[in-house]
Amino acid sequence: MAEEAAVRAQAETVRKLKQDKADPDEIAKEVTKLLEMKAQLGGDEGKQKFVLKTPKGTRDFGPKEMAIRERAFKAIISCFKRHGAEVIDTPVFELKETLMGKYGEDSKLIYDLKDQGGELLSLRYDLTVPFARYLAMNKITNIKRYHIAKVYRRDNPAMTRGRYREFYQCDFDIAGQFDPMIPDAECLKIVHEILSDLQLGDFVIKVNDRRILDGMFAVCGVPDSKFRTICSSVDKLDKMPWEEVRSEMVGEKGLSPEAADRIGEYVQLHGGLDLIERLLQDPKLSQNKLAKEGLGDMKLLFEYLTLFGITEKISFDLSLARGLDYYTGVIFEAVLLQQDNEHVEESVSVGSVAGGGRYDGLVGMFDPKGRKVPCVGVSIGIERIFSILEQRLEASEEKVRTTETQVLVASAQKKLLEERLKLISELWDAGIKAEMLYKKNPKLLNQLQYCEDTGIPLVAIVGEQELKDGVVKLRIVATREEVRPVARWGWLCDPSAQLTPALQTQWCFQQLL
Amino acid sequence: MAEEAAVRAQAETVRKLKQDKADPDEIAKEVTKLLEMKAQLGGDEGKQKFVLKTPKGTRDFGPKEMAIRERAFKAIISCFKRHGAEVIDTPVFELKETLMGKYGEDSKLIYDLKDQGGELLSLRYDLTVPFARYLAMNKITNIKRYHIAKVYRRDNPAMTRGRYREFYQCDFDIAGQFDPMIPDAECLKIVHEILSDLQLGDFVIKVNDRRILDGMFAVCGVPDSKFRTICSSVDKLDKMPWEEVRSEMVGEKGLSPEAADRIGEYVQLHGGLDLIERLLQDPKLSQNKLAKEGLGDMKLLFEYLTLFGITEKISFDLSLARGLDYYTGVIFEAVLLQQDNEHVEESVSVGSVAGGGRYDGLVGMFDPKGRKVPCVGVSIGIERIFSILEQRLEASEEKVRTTETQVLVASAQKKLLEERLKLISELWDAGIKAEMLYKKNPKLLNQLQYCEDTGIPLVAIVGEQELKDGVVKLRIVATREEVRPVARWGWLCDPSAQLTPALQTQWCFQQLL
Repeated sequence: MAEEAAVRAQAETVRKLKQDKADPDEIAKEVTKLLEMKAQLGGDEGKQKFVLKTPKGTRDFGPKEMAIRERAFKAIISCFKRHGAEVIDTPVFELKETLMGKYGEDSKLIYDLKDQGGELLSLRYDLTVPFARYLAMNKITNIKRYHIAKVYRRDNPAMTRGRYREFYQCDFDIAGQFDPMIPDAECLKIVHEILSDLQLGDFVIKVNDRRILDGMFAVCGVPDSKFRTICSSVDKLDKMPWEEVRSEMVGEKGLSPEAADRIGEYVQLHGGLDLIERLLQDPKLSQNKLAKEGLGDMKLLFEYLTLFGITEKISFDLSLARGLDYYTGVIFEAVLLQQDNEHVEESVSVGSVAGGGRYDGLVGMFDPKGRKVPCVGVSIGIERIFSILEQRLEASEEKVRTTETQVLVASAQKKLLEERLKLISELWDAGIKAEMLYKKNPKLLNQLQYCEDTGIPLVAIVGEQELKDGVVKLRIVATREEVRPVARWGWLCDPSAQLTPALQTQWCFQQLL
Repeated sequence: MAEEAAVRAQAETVRKLKQDKADPDEIAKEVTKLLEMKAQLGGDEGKQKFVLKTPKGTRDFGPKEMAIRERAFKAIISCFKRHGAEVIDTPVFELKETLMGKYGEDSKLIYDLKDQGGELLSLRYDLTVPFARYLAMNKITNIKRYHIAKVYRRDNPAMTRGRYREFYQCDFDIAGQFDPMIPDAECLKIVHEILSDLQLGDFVIKVNDRRILDGMFAVCGVPDSKFRTICSSVDKLDKMPWEEVRSEMVGEKGLSPEAADRIGEYVQLHGGLDLIERLLQDPKLSQNKLAKEGLGDMKLLFEYLTLFGITEKISFDLSLARGLDYYTGVIFEAVLLQQDNEHVEESVSVGSVAGGGRYDGLVGMFDPKGRKVPCVGVSIGIERIFSILEQRLEASEEKVRTTETQVLVASAQKKLLEERLKLISELWDAGIKAEMLYKKNPKLLNQLQYCEDTGIPLVAIVGEQELKDGVVKLRIVATREEVRPVARWGWLCDPSAQLTPALQTQWCFQQLL
């Protein structure tokens, strides 16, 4: 009975952890232990050996969520195709060494696979590094492609705000040697089109350039060796106030207070062409080669964005840094703006929904001879967009259909299963989306109820009289209205045409749907 | 210089391994070692630190392969939707314990993730177990869904025959308590529709039932404890002759030669309703409860398939076993038949392209109280289908377009970049798929060449004269024919209508495309 006491003690441990809202991983661990102990004891209680959950930071998409997801994907894909992109796909894992040294401080978030003999593998962290590997491996120097797939980060999930450990990225990239800023401007146009199309509310696209940042760091007196780490501090300005970022720079990263204060002055600036012009005249910045190059290109970018008519939503923002190591030029990030509306729930966090930039060195890191392929691209943060669309839909009480079924094949009397099977087969073969209940003798009421529950617009009713007459009775579910009987099995629906039964059926449905 | 000698020795090792066509994993390991040694030595040769490849058994899909893949998916998805299926998605990894004990001898092929703290995870091995976990977790007792996603098996890849370690499965399943064999028959109808639609050549769908197999094993004198292992021997009959399978049963698995010979007689049988009737009269089988049940249901299934008009392609085959542990009733597998054609390359292997069956116990394994949800489903083996479609396309020399671009915005003279940017932006905003070359002053010939290379049907040419006239010249690329100038920027294209510039553009393109 010592074992039973141990099980009781373990059950108490689990209860307390749950009560204290402890870390779910820890709870899961203790629950597993409890279940194992119970299983060893035997008995009915031991039957449940599984923790019924998806891994931490992941979720299932049920039919309703999928309907929303497919809507959002459709808008994004049609934009990418409108801009002439091809599509590629790469494996979900890469050789570990392919990912190493590409993500700076974030590398610790990479999921590794267990060494089961053979190669060491990691789950992809984004779609950009696999894209660069793909280009180098296939010696492609010129492509415009999109890639929509899941990526993996062992981050702290915040699922209500759409932050997961497994999440979709929707990437569009342009690789190749081109005249400056034309592809860069197109990437921003794409973000503008997608966010407008999805009607997510007001947004702003912040733009900066790594060269401007680096030039700024140089003229502020940041030592070369500290550029990257100071850059990742600046990157936190969207989540922390300047004072905290400053104390991280000075305290943790050993930057001089004077240098930090000089940075502080720059990173508070944001604006449009006027700000670019002003900085081009800035006595310090204008002396720095990198900054000057960056500002010159930024000016060109704004000229192109003016032609696209989208500058209203663009903000040149010196505080935008973006954490990833591989950016070399323009960087940008789209942020939704909180509407001034009391009814918006706080749970709808307002944050980054797209980001990207230029990375001219990444492909060269994979090429044996270091040959560079300049690239610029954008990634749509679709999970946050899903969260917003889901919450909006829930609020609206709009009913989402999760199937596309056009007609239910029903019967009014018993013993008509064979007739229903024959008819539905005919409909499928004619390309009509049809369902039936998997029962020998379903009640008509249940069949009609099924249509109402699932939104099927039409019901085809097989009855004894109709069978004798060689017709099918069609009813519009919403109005309960009956349409004139539809002929089948050799009878002509459209008397003027010579049609096969399948074509007839199709013809009849086209008239109705 | 000792280091240099070591590098030379290592290079020689690699060369030999390659020459001997050693295991690619081993070669990769030695190459990595070589590159590391070189890198330590420094110099240009050390630059290439990466083995530029995708992990063993995986591949990239370039634009051309994606075009083929999307065609196949379209056919499959439209079939699933035609049958009224909803769609779901689950994470690429599951808790390790979710997958444990579901796959019998194949469990060794599961990819585990590295323990990086937190939960123990494995990549999904199929879509069926995650589906069952999803049903139990959400207490769903009734659903018809499809799921198209990648699954992972540490199998020996045979990539030319479409066997990969990462591959897509396209699953359709019906869960719920229904009248017998109606959903089962629909699954077979779906396989028939998809294989017919994809025009892969002649095929046969083999059908059997786990209960018939188990009954057969019982009457042949196989001990209960050996049912599963003997079943997995039978499963090899599509790849091995009976003699080899027999010797595995007797030699490795300790079955008596008499029992093996009795099995041998049964597993050579295949046919249709006639065979079912004959076996229902078989003096031994008809005495076995399980076999009798299975045969009764098989008869019902064939009746429904007759109503669907597809029995011609169905073969009741007693040698069909299917390896997975979770099947409980009907099982089936679709096989392409080799055409009697000398020109078919041997590399196009003919094999299983779809399979499935009934698994009434799987959901109960996840339910705390063991509540069962009967399920039947089918999985389309899309990778083999890709391989066939790819090789066929290559043979046919059909040119596959990889983009959907409708028009290229081009210029006939220099210094018209701004005008091109303005026009293309107008087109995108009107929903027209448009591209331009990312050059300030591209040559007209290069622009036309780009259209021909990528299959863009129209070119809109901006020229000085047209700008003055406020029109755009449109040319059909294939015929070099010019269409009358298209008005823009406030001019009316259709003189009778009041249209905005964007709508005008759209209207004009609709007339042309």
